[in-house]
Amino acid sequence: MDEIKILLTEKEMPTHWYNIQADMPNPLQPPISPRTGEVMAPEELAVIFPEALLKQEMSRERFVEIPDEVREIYRLWRPSPLFRARRLEKALDTPARIYYKYEGVSPAGSHKLNTAVPQAYYNKKEGIKRLSTETGAGQWGSALAMACSFFGLECTVYMVKVSFQQKPYRRSMMQVFGAEVIPSPSDRTEAGKAILAKDPDSTGSLGIAISEAVEDAATHDDTNYALGSVLNHVVLHQTVIGLEAKKQMEKAGYYPDVVIACSGGGSNFSGLAMPFVHDKIKEGKNTRIMAVEPTACPSLTRGKFTYDYGDTAHLTPKMMMYTLGSEFVPPGIHAGGLRYHGASPIQSQLLHDGLIEAKAYGQLSVFEAAKMFAQNEGIIPAPESSHAIRAAIDEALAAKEAGEARTILFNLSGHGHFDMSAYDAYLSGKLTDSSLPEDTLKELINALP
Amino acid sequence: MDEIKILLTEKEMPTHWYNIQADMPNPLQPPISPRTGEVMAPEELAVIFPEALLKQEMSRERFVEIPDEVREIYRLWRPSPLFRARRLEKALDTPARIYYKYEGVSPAGSHKLNTAVPQAYYNKKEGIKRLSTETGAGQWGSALAMACSFFGLECTVYMVKVSFQQKPYRRSMMQVFGAEVIPSPSDRTEAGKAILAKDPDSTGSLGIAISEAVEDAATHDDTNYALGSVLNHVVLHQTVIGLEAKKQMEKAGYYPDVVIACSGGGSNFSGLAMPFVHDKIKEGKNTRIMAVEPTACPSLTRGKFTYDYGDTAHLTPKMMMYTLGSEFVPPGIHAGGLRYHGASPIQSQLLHDGLIEAKAYGQLSVFEAAKMFAQNEGIIPAPESSHAIRAAIDEALAAKEAGEARTILFNLSGHGHFDMSAYDAYLSGKLTDSSLPEDTLKELINALP
Repeated sequence: MDEIKILLTEKEMPTHWYNIQADMPNPLQPPISPRTGEVMAPEELAVIFPEALLKQEMSRERFVEIPDEVREIYRLWRPSPLFRARRLEKALDTPARIYYKYEGVSPAGSHKLNTAVPQAYYNKKEGIKRLSTETGAGQWGSALAMACSFFGLECTVYMVKVSFQQKPYRRSMMQVFGAEVIPSPSDRTEAGKAILAKDPDSTGSLGIAISEAVEDAATHDDTNYALGSVLNHVVLHQTVIGLEAKKQMEKAGYYPDVVIACSGGGSNFSGLAMPFVHDKIKEGKNTRIMAVEPTACPSLTRGKFTYDYGDTAHLTPKMMMYTLGSEFVPPGIHAGGLRYHGASPIQSQLLHDGLIEAKAYGQLSVFEAAKMFAQNEGIIPAPESSHAIRAAIDEALAAKEAGEARTILFNLSGHGHFDMSAYDAYLSGKLTDSSLPEDTLKELINALP
Repeated sequence: MDEIKILLTEKEMPTHWYNIQADMPNPLQPPISPRTGEVMAPEELAVIFPEALLKQEMSRERFVEIPDEVREIYRLWRPSPLFRARRLEKALDTPARIYYKYEGVSPAGSHKLNTAVPQAYYNKKEGIKRLSTETGAGQWGSALAMACSFFGLECTVYMVKVSFQQKPYRRSMMQVFGAEVIPSPSDRTEAGKAILAKDPDSTGSLGIAISEAVEDAATHDDTNYALGSVLNHVVLHQTVIGLEAKKQMEKAGYYPDVVIACSGGGSNFSGLAMPFVHDKIKEGKNTRIMAVEPTACPSLTRGKFTYDYGDTAHLTPKMMMYTLGSEFVPPGIHAGGLRYHGASPIQSQLLHDGLIEAKAYGQLSVFEAAKMFAQNEGIIPAPESSHAIRAAIDEALAAKEAGEARTILFNLSGHGHFDMSAYDAYLSGKLTDSSLPEDTLKELINALP
């Protein structure tokens, strides 16, 4: 019998991350300083990021060595397993081979730990005592809290107040790891105070929480800021997923015809995809590489490729990316990790260059796919990851229609153990589709420069 | 570098379960019928259990083959990893080697799936259409719901009403797998109706839920009952844990000096321990084998070895076991899976014969150990499993005191992702120790036959 789990030993874990910037046909456009309106000098960011990460942000080296101290911690869950979804294939009666890389085995429950660990490491090495960050749904906050605990760093997480109140268990998880979790807006920062002065009952937003975390880092010498997606160094760290997956697909004996991952800021998508984009650019493979996003926040499928800010308060540099506008607040769908107005510059450039594609789904069809997956494969997937499952199922059905034994690879970026209220809403018929109306979309795009 | 995770391939997964009944120096005392007061004939139980399981319940065959259909599903998460807790060892500054077998990788989140899958399989094979069961904390209910979904069986779970209300996420998990979850007491059964007539606001108990599930099975031809612990066939199925762990310890190059697991009904303890008890009996190994229970429910450390019922309502056979009395309701501690008045007959006999030992801890020291484990190893452990962690830490500290590099193996039977409210209570200082007062204990024991 063929194995269901394709495993790698710890010795087979990648020793280097892969940097797609070395191989992009069109290089990234430079970031623009929010202060000067000119191309940004890396030094401007040195007040909130360590030198090593800024270097990685700009690097065009093809391979960047993973420090031993980081690999030592990766070993707690990496290499992560690659599964063949045989029961799902059978349920779909498809000739397609469906493989999924499972990042939910990380102790924090998602791929976010892949970058949280090196970010904590480099900051520690450069003498930083504390990291500040923001979190919405809580995946990123709990990953960073754990990484900080491992390196003896303090960790301050500004958690969107409505999530702080509605998702107490992600908060508890961060606290178990010793992090301080502050409902945002708070009176800890000028940004938070200004919001509270206007609206004492504000339930917060990711934009406000970012402003608070950045201000906290910028105003404390011993404190830096950490971001869980969008930036080039985050994409770099996440490529450990795709590098492992490539080795595992080789062991399985198939090269994927289509590679699929969900996409918010783009970190889990880029992590799985970049090593396959490499093959497409350098070896002429004609793999389809698909980012899947919610119709409630369709930056890749409906957004504009232009310079925009990374945050609502316009404290970050402007970056060239697909965006719906930095002031856009998406409807409150249950895949909180996909509610970002833009996409990472790397992913955006590759989409613009036709090397990857994008697709959007409404959340009802996404939860339908999640339930089917759980009933066949056992794992309860995160709502974010379930966007990839939806697309993989549709690809498997298309393969059936065509009568072709295509190979499908997708990223199951995390489990849904902290998202059961979303399943509750779905099972009780309370979930709405939350797709963005056409008029709203047009207004958003027209307002962009 | 030595590996942190000792993995087995799917081909190395055990082909047979190990039956300790073949090797016990003193055989089990027979069960007594609640109806006749005489030794029970297996046929009496055939109305609620399939023949194959009743045969396993009585079997003295040393090895029982695992059906291919069961192994096919085990492969989704088995063989489970064995970890070396190097970061914990370092934090304790101990010369001890600490290994743990991690059953939380099962899609249902605990070891319970090891027996849920064969129970569903044998019932399906004998033409049963539906299984009924009870659940308190929800670990067992979600494992059986998943197993039923895999074999196309309907599943009815009577969930203690207070848990149904307070633990909505375990309930949602069962519903994702297609199970019907009924708050107990309910008006579905005579047992439930009788309780509701007396007390319409009853929040239920495990005893009542068992009565409802057993009645449901006994009164429907197409329906059987399934139990997640205590019984011999459950112990048999769980030995897949210890059989794998033995192979993995061989690969690691060490034989454990002490084997530790938490114990409620005894299923995860027996699963890890029995293959090592075998070595103790047959090969003269002097391994210490330790069951760890809460001081709130100390059946093994303070109970009496006597015939007692398995349930509160006295519908089950009387079995020879360590018990605090079948009408005892333990204080409401957060390790719900350890709140059982007795211990499995197999485990009880072995304790009586001096082949295993037992230890009890209060829940405050257990959560302290859980937090230390999470901060070092990353995994948030289930409160039940954390009893084993507490004992393992104390053994590692004893090894340090003695200056001996002892090898410690424990079972991490599940993760704590659905138990974060317990961590909340601990972190906010609201948790009490809940140990049973000495007077209460004496009264309980004195009331036993």
